[in-house]
Amino acid sequence: MEVFKMKDFVFDMPTRVLFGAGQLGALHEQKLPGKKALIVTSNGQSVKKYGYLARTEKELELAGVEHALFDEIRSNPTRENVMDGAKAVKENGCDFVVALGGGSVMDCTKCIALMAANPGDIWDYSLSSQGGKQTPPFDAIPIVAITTSAGTGSEVDMAAVISNNATKEKTGIFFPSMFPTLSIVDSDLMMSVPPKFTAYQGMDAFFHASESVINKNEHVVAEMFALKAIELVAKYLPIAYKDGANKEARYYMAIANTLAGYYMNCTSAHTMEHVMGSYHENLVHGAGLIMIAHAYYDFFAERQAAEEPMIKMARAMGVKDPSSGKDFIRALDALLESIDCADLKMSEAGITREEMKLYPQRVHEVLGGDITADPLPLSDEDYLEIYEKSFR
Amino acid sequence: MEVFKMKDFVFDMPTRVLFGAGQLGALHEQKLPGKKALIVTSNGQSVKKYGYLARTEKELELAGVEHALFDEIRSNPTRENVMDGAKAVKENGCDFVVALGGGSVMDCTKCIALMAANPGDIWDYSLSSQGGKQTPPFDAIPIVAITTSAGTGSEVDMAAVISNNATKEKTGIFFPSMFPTLSIVDSDLMMSVPPKFTAYQGMDAFFHASESVINKNEHVVAEMFALKAIELVAKYLPIAYKDGANKEARYYMAIANTLAGYYMNCTSAHTMEHVMGSYHENLVHGAGLIMIAHAYYDFFAERQAAEEPMIKMARAMGVKDPSSGKDFIRALDALLESIDCADLKMSEAGITREEMKLYPQRVHEVLGGDITADPLPLSDEDYLEIYEKSFR
Repeated sequence: MEVFKMKDFVFDMPTRVLFGAGQLGALHEQKLPGKKALIVTSNGQSVKKYGYLARTEKELELAGVEHALFDEIRSNPTRENVMDGAKAVKENGCDFVVALGGGSVMDCTKCIALMAANPGDIWDYSLSSQGGKQTPPFDAIPIVAITTSAGTGSEVDMAAVISNNATKEKTGIFFPSMFPTLSIVDSDLMMSVPPKFTAYQGMDAFFHASESVINKNEHVVAEMFALKAIELVAKYLPIAYKDGANKEARYYMAIANTLAGYYMNCTSAHTMEHVMGSYHENLVHGAGLIMIAHAYYDFFAERQAAEEPMIKMARAMGVKDPSSGKDFIRALDALLESIDCADLKMSEAGITREEMKLYPQRVHEVLGGDITADPLPLSDEDYLEIYEKSFR
Repeated sequence: MEVFKMKDFVFDMPTRVLFGAGQLGALHEQKLPGKKALIVTSNGQSVKKYGYLARTEKELELAGVEHALFDEIRSNPTRENVMDGAKAVKENGCDFVVALGGGSVMDCTKCIALMAANPGDIWDYSLSSQGGKQTPPFDAIPIVAITTSAGTGSEVDMAAVISNNATKEKTGIFFPSMFPTLSIVDSDLMMSVPPKFTAYQGMDAFFHASESVINKNEHVVAEMFALKAIELVAKYLPIAYKDGANKEARYYMAIANTLAGYYMNCTSAHTMEHVMGSYHENLVHGAGLIMIAHAYYDFFAERQAAEEPMIKMARAMGVKDPSSGKDFIRALDALLESIDCADLKMSEAGITREEMKLYPQRVHEVLGGDITADPLPLSDEDYLEIYEKSFR
């Protein structure tokens, strides 16, 4: 019998998602949610250099939709980014937004859409300790998301992570109207992601899924999505990493990432990484997750605390007849080895053993996964042990 | 590598679905799409006798929603059922509908919702040869679906099958506004389904999934849903059949059925059954599918035309190390045996060998699955061979 014990759960995904290689070319055939779009992109050059922006503009024109451009989103987008974007929506008379980029762009765009329709400041609607904790009186204006990375799953959720430099907070903001109306998951837009980021983003997707599978609140449908994501990452990430031009590997990685986003039931591993990131802004989220992965999962494998979920994950990763959680650990180690991520060093990100002692307390403070949902409850000593075992 | 060859596909499911045992009790906590509901149920006694109707009424009252009752839906619902229901919506001043029942009730309710908002007759919007083929000028009024059977998947699609006695047609009517806003998949409402119908409905769900897996247009996400449905039916249908009071088996069968409904990529097997049903109205759809299943799937297994999909299905059904399509055939036979369905007789439904000669031509005429999507194209001689091999 299943471990899920007949849980009640909801499946609610109002976003229409187009999957495929080349699906950006179908944008103009879609029913678009307005007459003039603000295209929101990063302050970098990729979407311009590779022609994604020009293609998006052409698609909107084919659909008879006007557009303006806001290309100022930085990684770890800020409160100012949001408010400037919302101002751009109003100044340009736009009635919907198109996010073109990775997780930072999509997250920031969702908040821009919210603030284009609501009074005050984005922080009025933040649940962080210095946030206003208000409920926005109006729905966000409609959002179309075109993802250019396979990592965050932001194209199928209603959440955004935003930083506030004034309050030194980084928090999640989420309201149901922030679900994209339409998302495009076009692997052709991911062909240019360099190997290192392909690996980090791909493993971020993997960990969204693996944390969901071991999550003690897991249910049968979330597990279905997560195991499929794990299967696809294990099979295709090593190929996409070694040969970024492999269209099939990029196609399946794009799908894997989005599938891992349908239910993002993260556990304390995500929180532990956010603690590391809160001290070292340049630490890439996926890399941080990789650094602690072996020690985190092995903590439960050693204690046989998640045998059935880990056996299922090992099987999804292609292990023949797995029989214990340790089979998952071996498969995870091999996967990380295959993408040259088996010995990422915390020390190179600036983390020290001394600083690490402060981390367990911070696990209770930062944004992250559900730290009550691990297969076994973790104590501060346990967190420290996992961090210390991960240190290189 | 996968067989899917990087297909483009869409995932679009605007219906919010509550899954669980007892989830009807959460109806009053949902955001309901109106102020007064027409509850639409069958002309039978089950929903009254088992208290499902009273519970639904109480939930609406708790939510502050008024209600009226239309309890006239027959199996194989008709054009008249639809028009009478639409009249009841207007006469009672209802602004949304609640379907409480199995596939017939849900299908008819979707059309009632359409006709409550649109002029003319439901057949004006039918694509059948004598249908008006018009596009309805207005969206259907909102639909809440509460399913009491695990068989049709109608709670997660926008389609309805309606009969017109005047034109002797039975056709599918489907428009995007006919997706339910909210569906409740509560296995507690299925505990009273008798064993025979548990088996027929459960296998209908199974075949929605298995036809999807062998469908030559299958893609990775539809396959994910279908294989999970197959896994759950193979594991839990024999239990639900033998012990209808087993809550866990009912829970997983309810989920399996709905998962099989997310993508219903049916092949010619569904069409072949509809031909049988068009001659014998009392033939239960699931029973008809069972009668032809062995011969239909074995046709492809003999020709090794769907080895990879069948091996995947066999594995999902618990076969250890399957190596050919024949492993799926054996697992299917064993499943049917376990629910006492291995020798259902066409002759007992009134089918004769003589009549059967007329069937292949009708496959091209009736509503059904996509007859161009089989793993191998079937000729009229092939259809006849499958029917004849199925005859008992």
